[in-house]
Amino acid sequence: MAVLSFELCGKDAASKARAGTLRTDHGTIETPIFMPVGTVGSVKAVSQQQLKEDVNAQIILGNTYHLYLRPGLEVLEAAGGLHKFMGWDRPILTDSGGYQVFSLAGKRKLTEEGALFQSHIDGSRHLFTPESVMDIQRVIGADIIMAFDECPPYPSDYAYAKKSMDLTHRWLDRCFKRLAETPDKYGHTQNLFPIVQGSTYTDLRRASCEYVASKGAVGNAIGGLSVGEPEEMMYEHAAHCCEILPADKPRYLMGVGTPWNILENISLGIDMFDCVMPTRNGRNAMLFTSKGVINIDNKKWEKDFSPLDDGIGSPFSEYYTKAYMRHLVKAKEILALTVASVHNLNFYLWLVKQARAHILAGDFNSWKNEMIPVLKTRL
Amino acid sequence: MAVLSFELCGKDAASKARAGTLRTDHGTIETPIFMPVGTVGSVKAVSQQQLKEDVNAQIILGNTYHLYLRPGLEVLEAAGGLHKFMGWDRPILTDSGGYQVFSLAGKRKLTEEGALFQSHIDGSRHLFTPESVMDIQRVIGADIIMAFDECPPYPSDYAYAKKSMDLTHRWLDRCFKRLAETPDKYGHTQNLFPIVQGSTYTDLRRASCEYVASKGAVGNAIGGLSVGEPEEMMYEHAAHCCEILPADKPRYLMGVGTPWNILENISLGIDMFDCVMPTRNGRNAMLFTSKGVINIDNKKWEKDFSPLDDGIGSPFSEYYTKAYMRHLVKAKEILALTVASVHNLNFYLWLVKQARAHILAGDFNSWKNEMIPVLKTRL
Repeated sequence: MAVLSFELCGKDAASKARAGTLRTDHGTIETPIFMPVGTVGSVKAVSQQQLKEDVNAQIILGNTYHLYLRPGLEVLEAAGGLHKFMGWDRPILTDSGGYQVFSLAGKRKLTEEGALFQSHIDGSRHLFTPESVMDIQRVIGADIIMAFDECPPYPSDYAYAKKSMDLTHRWLDRCFKRLAETPDKYGHTQNLFPIVQGSTYTDLRRASCEYVASKGAVGNAIGGLSVGEPEEMMYEHAAHCCEILPADKPRYLMGVGTPWNILENISLGIDMFDCVMPTRNGRNAMLFTSKGVINIDNKKWEKDFSPLDDGIGSPFSEYYTKAYMRHLVKAKEILALTVASVHNLNFYLWLVKQARAHILAGDFNSWKNEMIPVLKTRL
Repeated sequence: MAVLSFELCGKDAASKARAGTLRTDHGTIETPIFMPVGTVGSVKAVSQQQLKEDVNAQIILGNTYHLYLRPGLEVLEAAGGLHKFMGWDRPILTDSGGYQVFSLAGKRKLTEEGALFQSHIDGSRHLFTPESVMDIQRVIGADIIMAFDECPPYPSDYAYAKKSMDLTHRWLDRCFKRLAETPDKYGHTQNLFPIVQGSTYTDLRRASCEYVASKGAVGNAIGGLSVGEPEEMMYEHAAHCCEILPADKPRYLMGVGTPWNILENISLGIDMFDCVMPTRNGRNAMLFTSKGVINIDNKKWEKDFSPLDDGIGSPFSEYYTKAYMRHLVKAKEILALTVASVHNLNFYLWLVKQARAHILAGDFNSWKNEMIPVLKTRL
């Protein structure tokens, strides 16, 4: 099968936004794209049918840390990889587990070798190294796999940020080496994306982008942003990274973000996004719509029988009303979690599709500037 | 619009099983039928799309007690009734709230007038009378509405069972009277089913069936069974009631039951069933399949990549594997609740459809006797 390829189909005149086509062995992805997060092999509260038919997700994300712990490699390998295990025949991307080791795991210890950590489920001890993480991602079998990195918290002092970045770079070399030594497991090609780190230091970000760019990977990611720093700082570093990372390769900004974060970062040259926000916030009664943000828990929606969102061309989001959705939330019905998650993902996928259409039409930047205040409105 | 009609299309030679067609203003129901329970305006963990497209539910049930408390009559009336509120254009049946007042509510007091009770949600005090329950069901707007009854617990002594039955009969008269005095609210006809009570006393059951039959209702229900008595006792009373209740009207056995309960009661002449079992047990990792009962939590399914059930012609139940479903349960994923509920309902609707086909083919009883041991098998 074939290595991931990326073709640019259009650029916005007034910004750095680009539209592209990303080809993997499990199908084609039109960029800019948002990737729903399916942490443990399920996009929370959303069925695979809903993900395909309602959301029309083109690629989803899995978390290596979670999948390694549960169901574990033995089950995933016996299933023939995550695609078959969960019943998803479109592209999958897995992160490297680096982020989770530092955000979720119990006691952990970082060495040159890797990261020793305790499972957040049962306290068992595990060692992630660049090599083991490549091997684990081989077993999971995603189309796009991520390098093992350390994601420093915000804020980090300069010395720590530099030390951490240098370690991430050395780990990156080991990832590439290990991947080259191991064959694709399930017949399709797995493509490694390196991750730029460097915290909030411009010179470190530049050094990291240059190092990453030098690897000639088929796609590149920016990590360590959207970890608590001010939005303007995220945009500044994303813009800076986009200037250095190769223009002919897809750029993935990890863990971002709100609808307006996504539009702003598209305008800077980002092509790929993932975030738990549409599903997690949905489970907490927050709906993102084409007219603004709704807290559906609010009494004001009690007798509002208008659709959740009639502006995104989704039969699902038009089927359920605000009043019914509020009732589901108040009555703690499980369906509330599903409807909110499916709707929010419908909205996110609609948003990136609109962005793409406007890039191709050449009016992305003005559309974006009109949309952002609308999307931010608290309804 | 038209009053509910019932037409018998076939009878089994070796049992009392019948196949019929039940017509309501929201569509036709082929009997015998199972009605998924949508307590508070949602069949728990199942979307309306799944209910229509996967389960293919022909009629669903709503609970008057729950809907009255939440979202409440003001919202339901503003929505134009439950059909519009929840987005369900097929038939709906509502129970009368009698059962819930005695099983769920806090302190309650029974008088000739009705039942005074405290909400299980906020402790607020409410009075249900035959008249108020008719009025509430008018606002909810179901196609089939149930008389307000007292459902005595099992066991009940004879004196209590008789006193309770007599009260239920007097309440029944008041229900019919109130309904006749009030118009249909939303343009479609609402049809009142009386409920036979009488606990486990044959003479009381006979008296209640005769009283109920004398009302000439378009359909009749049997309550107060499957409340803890031995299965054989339930079958005995159901059989007895079916002998007395008019043969040309649908017979609804409330709150039943397991797959084998349903087949046995179909053989006695029951046409309609409802039960929380497929959804509630599904949420607790129990799957009913065409090959037997599965506790999907069990380690034995860890690497079983066969479909949940390939014997019921359901693409949904064939999509998800046992190993994946077990993983979802172990990982406490919300999708586990949905997949189990949709599958179990798929199975229940398949079962009654098969029963109907075998009644029409004339071999129901032998098919039933072959099926029951299979369905009861613990896999």
